[in-house]
Amino acid sequence: MEVISIGLLGLGTVGSGVVKIIENHQDKLMHQIGCPVEVKRVLVKDLNKERAVDIHPEKLTVNAEDIINDSEIDVIIEVMGGVEETRKHLLAALKNRKHVVTANKDLMAVYGSELLTVASENGCDLFYEASVAGGIPILRSLVDGLASDRITKMMGIVNGTTNFILTKMSKQGSAYEEVLKEAQELGYAESDPTSDVEGLDAARKMAILSTLGFSMKIDLDDVKVKGITQITEEDLQYGKQLGYTMKLIGIAHREGEKVDVSVQPTLLADSHPLAAVNDEYNAVYVYGEAVGETMFYGPGAGSLPTATAVVSDLVGVMKNMRLGVNGKSAVTPQYPKKLKEPSEINSKYFLRLHVKDEVGVFANITTIFSEHGVSFEKILQLPVKEKGTAEIVLVTHHASLQDYEDILVKLRDLHAVKELKSSYRVEGSSRV
Amino acid sequence: MEVISIGLLGLGTVGSGVVKIIENHQDKLMHQIGCPVEVKRVLVKDLNKERAVDIHPEKLTVNAEDIINDSEIDVIIEVMGGVEETRKHLLAALKNRKHVVTANKDLMAVYGSELLTVASENGCDLFYEASVAGGIPILRSLVDGLASDRITKMMGIVNGTTNFILTKMSKQGSAYEEVLKEAQELGYAESDPTSDVEGLDAARKMAILSTLGFSMKIDLDDVKVKGITQITEEDLQYGKQLGYTMKLIGIAHREGEKVDVSVQPTLLADSHPLAAVNDEYNAVYVYGEAVGETMFYGPGAGSLPTATAVVSDLVGVMKNMRLGVNGKSAVTPQYPKKLKEPSEINSKYFLRLHVKDEVGVFANITTIFSEHGVSFEKILQLPVKEKGTAEIVLVTHHASLQDYEDILVKLRDLHAVKELKSSYRVEGSSRV
Repeated sequence: MEVISIGLLGLGTVGSGVVKIIENHQDKLMHQIGCPVEVKRVLVKDLNKERAVDIHPEKLTVNAEDIINDSEIDVIIEVMGGVEETRKHLLAALKNRKHVVTANKDLMAVYGSELLTVASENGCDLFYEASVAGGIPILRSLVDGLASDRITKMMGIVNGTTNFILTKMSKQGSAYEEVLKEAQELGYAESDPTSDVEGLDAARKMAILSTLGFSMKIDLDDVKVKGITQITEEDLQYGKQLGYTMKLIGIAHREGEKVDVSVQPTLLADSHPLAAVNDEYNAVYVYGEAVGETMFYGPGAGSLPTATAVVSDLVGVMKNMRLGVNGKSAVTPQYPKKLKEPSEINSKYFLRLHVKDEVGVFANITTIFSEHGVSFEKILQLPVKEKGTAEIVLVTHHASLQDYEDILVKLRDLHAVKELKSSYRVEGSSRV
Repeated sequence: MEVISIGLLGLGTVGSGVVKIIENHQDKLMHQIGCPVEVKRVLVKDLNKERAVDIHPEKLTVNAEDIINDSEIDVIIEVMGGVEETRKHLLAALKNRKHVVTANKDLMAVYGSELLTVASENGCDLFYEASVAGGIPILRSLVDGLASDRITKMMGIVNGTTNFILTKMSKQGSAYEEVLKEAQELGYAESDPTSDVEGLDAARKMAILSTLGFSMKIDLDDVKVKGITQITEEDLQYGKQLGYTMKLIGIAHREGEKVDVSVQPTLLADSHPLAAVNDEYNAVYVYGEAVGETMFYGPGAGSLPTATAVVSDLVGVMKNMRLGVNGKSAVTPQYPKKLKEPSEINSKYFLRLHVKDEVGVFANITTIFSEHGVSFEKILQLPVKEKGTAEIVLVTHHASLQDYEDILVKLRDLHAVKELKSSYRVEGSSRV
């Protein structure tokens, strides 16, 4: 190999970062690979747009086939985003025996399994470290670093936008809408924030993480999702008072042969390592049977952090090229998919409700819980908010999701209950 | 390969963990490797000692050569500890073309470079993830996950014993000696704790980390070391008051071509991710030019966590065996060693001193600092402790180590200074 040639699909934020790192760290890459690396062609939408990096105009093309069919290109780096069209490009590239590095979680969450199979059939590497938690080398850590262990639980703060919003809401005591606007102005949230704030982005990452961590093909549809748009300042304040911090947490849990994966706002005990992960940072907490608690922390997005993961994957591809072992590192899922039923999913819950301020109401409510065998860790009975109304805040001990949902149905039917204000999963035990 | 045979040197805490993980996770190992793994022989000191694991007595031997010269053994796992004799065993094993996995930081900090060279010459893998921070896959993350980045700073809480002691001292307000005794009773500290509490254990790990992270051969002697035995409850209390947490921190810092590596008690701003790492946990904070801040957290020691790292390395060796690429993954240091001079090492410092309670003393002291161009971030002048004595607590802005040491010499000579009570490095800016 005299020089390794890269075809870059996309020259946005991450693509520009990739060009910069390949230029700036050329000597480190040379030392590891033994030959230079060059970005040969770049797919863009608009040839005349101004770019964040210096790149020779002749390298730019609007035609993906110029790259996919270029026999001199060894590796395709895909940072253009999108799903259906991108899938076609990458399938064509893999069939042309080009290795692929991608940062595309949307694509990998849906077509990861297909693409990995085609890569393997063609003796190609397909690496996607950057698709989960940007600059944190979490996929490698699961596959290599914890290769010998049985992972039973993963909890991730894997969306920077929502973590930024919740951190600000918590620190400033501001409302969701207000902080969202601030995040948009700072560039931490998109103008259409749906994918982030509704938890879909995090769900894609949890599908990828749990597929690898549990060695079981988890599809995006298997991940239960609830976003952060309904969280109020009151909920955050009650959380604090009780020793909990509100985070949007993806939880993947394995018990025996069955798993459960969800993304939802969660009140996390302040002592939990994830509770201190603030602002736009991401972190993935991994519990292994043998290793116990580990956590991986870092930037979840951004041009250079994400590009670091992309180019590190590229180094992996190039090392394999040197050794002649491409296309052999993917491990196929070991276990058939088995998802837990609601009766098998256990958690603690926070519930806030408004009730009529009458004699016997509290007894009626607690009776419903006790009929389902659910007891309480904490109960706050609070001063009347409006005339004739009392607020009750409860944290349950562990209950099955089935029981908890049945309880919510019964509470809603109860004449004395005016409104179920909010309900969240609770993780860990606070010291308060 | 019908079965991969392991020779185990040592059957103590970690060795027993290795046996357990190979047994308990055999199906996961099989899935990744495609053949069974078996511990064939085990080197022990005493054949008759009771063991924490079931192992056939015929597998035990007191003679290392039974293992090193067994032609059926593919991989040697070294968890016996010790340096000189162990080095001989491993050199002999490598020359017999056996791959080696070791958890031995003492050995790797001193003879790592020699052993890696011999391994490479003989086409053998030599992996040592478990030698730094037990269950945290930090070496892999540096070498693979951040392969494309230029790492400029690493800060590690890499000794669980001292972190346990400092956490307890801080939370309970207890004295060092008292907490050390408690740690010994709980098995978190050895009966002779010197290597831990004097910082030597952490120094060995920082030598290994900085050699890999900076791609520069850093020897144990290059690491400046100060332990925790002189830390008092007062120091911790002042730290808290100023917004800092006391930790034993290994810092490896690169600026331009020069590096500095040290282990010393450090007052860390409460907002720093490492400040929340408590009890016996370890963590390594890595700053890369492109990726920015990352942190890797987990158990630093213990039977199963350390064994997880050992067996994960074993999986790496076995994957390489399957691909026929053993002995090719080690990267030799890229840069010649260049250490910073004291005039090039910059830090903030905490200084506590007792002075005569006289007019003009404070001016004398601050004049010495200003003569060296060192200014203050915080100054506390405190009530007189004993008759005629005042206590002064200072936190400086950044100063060179050279200037700071010169200042300390001058302060000691000052008639009005009764005693320099304590002095620590300070990292980060507190919000207090």
